[in-house]
Amino acid sequence: MSKLRLSITMSLDGYVAGPDQSEENPLGVGGMELHQWFFPLEEFREMHGEAGGEVNASSAIVEERRANIGSTIMGRNMFGPVRGPWPDESWRGWWGEDPPYHHPVFVLTHHPREPLEMEGDTTFYFVSDGIEPALAQAKDAAEGGDVWLAGGASAVNQYLAARLVDEIDISIAPVALGAGARLFDGVERGALKLKQVRVVDAPGVTHIKYEVS
Amino acid sequence: MSKLRLSITMSLDGYVAGPDQSEENPLGVGGMELHQWFFPLEEFREMHGEAGGEVNASSAIVEERRANIGSTIMGRNMFGPVRGPWPDESWRGWWGEDPPYHHPVFVLTHHPREPLEMEGDTTFYFVSDGIEPALAQAKDAAEGGDVWLAGGASAVNQYLAARLVDEIDISIAPVALGAGARLFDGVERGALKLKQVRVVDAPGVTHIKYEVS
Repeated sequence: MSKLRLSITMSLDGYVAGPDQSEENPLGVGGMELHQWFFPLEEFREMHGEAGGEVNASSAIVEERRANIGSTIMGRNMFGPVRGPWPDESWRGWWGEDPPYHHPVFVLTHHPREPLEMEGDTTFYFVSDGIEPALAQAKDAAEGGDVWLAGGASAVNQYLAARLVDEIDISIAPVALGAGARLFDGVERGALKLKQVRVVDAPGVTHIKYEVS
Repeated sequence: MSKLRLSITMSLDGYVAGPDQSEENPLGVGGMELHQWFFPLEEFREMHGEAGGEVNASSAIVEERRANIGSTIMGRNMFGPVRGPWPDESWRGWWGEDPPYHHPVFVLTHHPREPLEMEGDTTFYFVSDGIEPALAQAKDAAEGGDVWLAGGASAVNQYLAARLVDEIDISIAPVALGAGARLFDGVERGALKLKQVRVVDAPGVTHIKYEVS
């Protein structure tokens, strides 16, 4: 059975992005601080075509999160800063012509758009008929693999509230952002039955994995 | 130097108590689920005069948190359900005649009250002139030891926002409460500079310690 697996980095005070997200500041004020554990890694540099970098306790976690993933779901705000109907086809994601996915990516949006084929086997599909059809398409496209639920908070919280997430692998960064996009917002008590299955103490971050039933 | 050390259990979605706290339900709806990791421990049973219980990876954490503590600070809601001026002296805390502190406990309240001496070396002092005088008195009473900041959310958040906390040792329970008393509420970005110093993977809980500067 194909699973929907959330992996995401959260501040100790519960935010996955800071306030005032914009094209210049996609993660909002302070949001980059969340990912300080990730940037020095060899895996991160390799994704961006750079050599070198660290190997530490987070490296195996990054590998584990990528293993067996066949497709990705993300919210429109994670894909880009454009709001409302697409004015044209010029916005092609934050990641350049060869995005670090290398599989089908399903972008939740209220505004239909033709699929966008990029280099390196990444194609963005725009799904405007809801989170459940998006999940069905993503599972189908994963061809037996799992689906990565990547963000942002609004998309993730919708899937959590609808009890469609099978696994939560959360990285808790030693940061308090004070405001921003809050994970679990609108997710009611009882929506998630969690079982802690793995904890890793890595430099500057704690990775905790939960099974959700 | 005497430190102010916060140790507290939080749900994955950021709450330290559920909604609708009352005398019958001091931790609010679902709040007891937060502490499921603690109740089976030998240390917990011993505090309540019972024999038996488990020893697991949380046991050493409980010991570590109690070590070198000379006094405690708590908010009035953690001391009891009475609101407004004290109608009389009949409320003597949730813990019976021999509370599990065995040192001076400073209760933050807007309403003065005479100190309350209990069995087993616990005395409750009611401090009505603010969080800084309470901390000064608690440090003095600790006689070189540290001060435990015990809860609830409102008292803790005031100390965090005022940058008076030296250490945060947080237990993250595999629970989503959906509502309740939120830790870090009102604590602005920049108020806490955190350094992760220790992570423990224990049955049904993750313990993370941060130094605050």
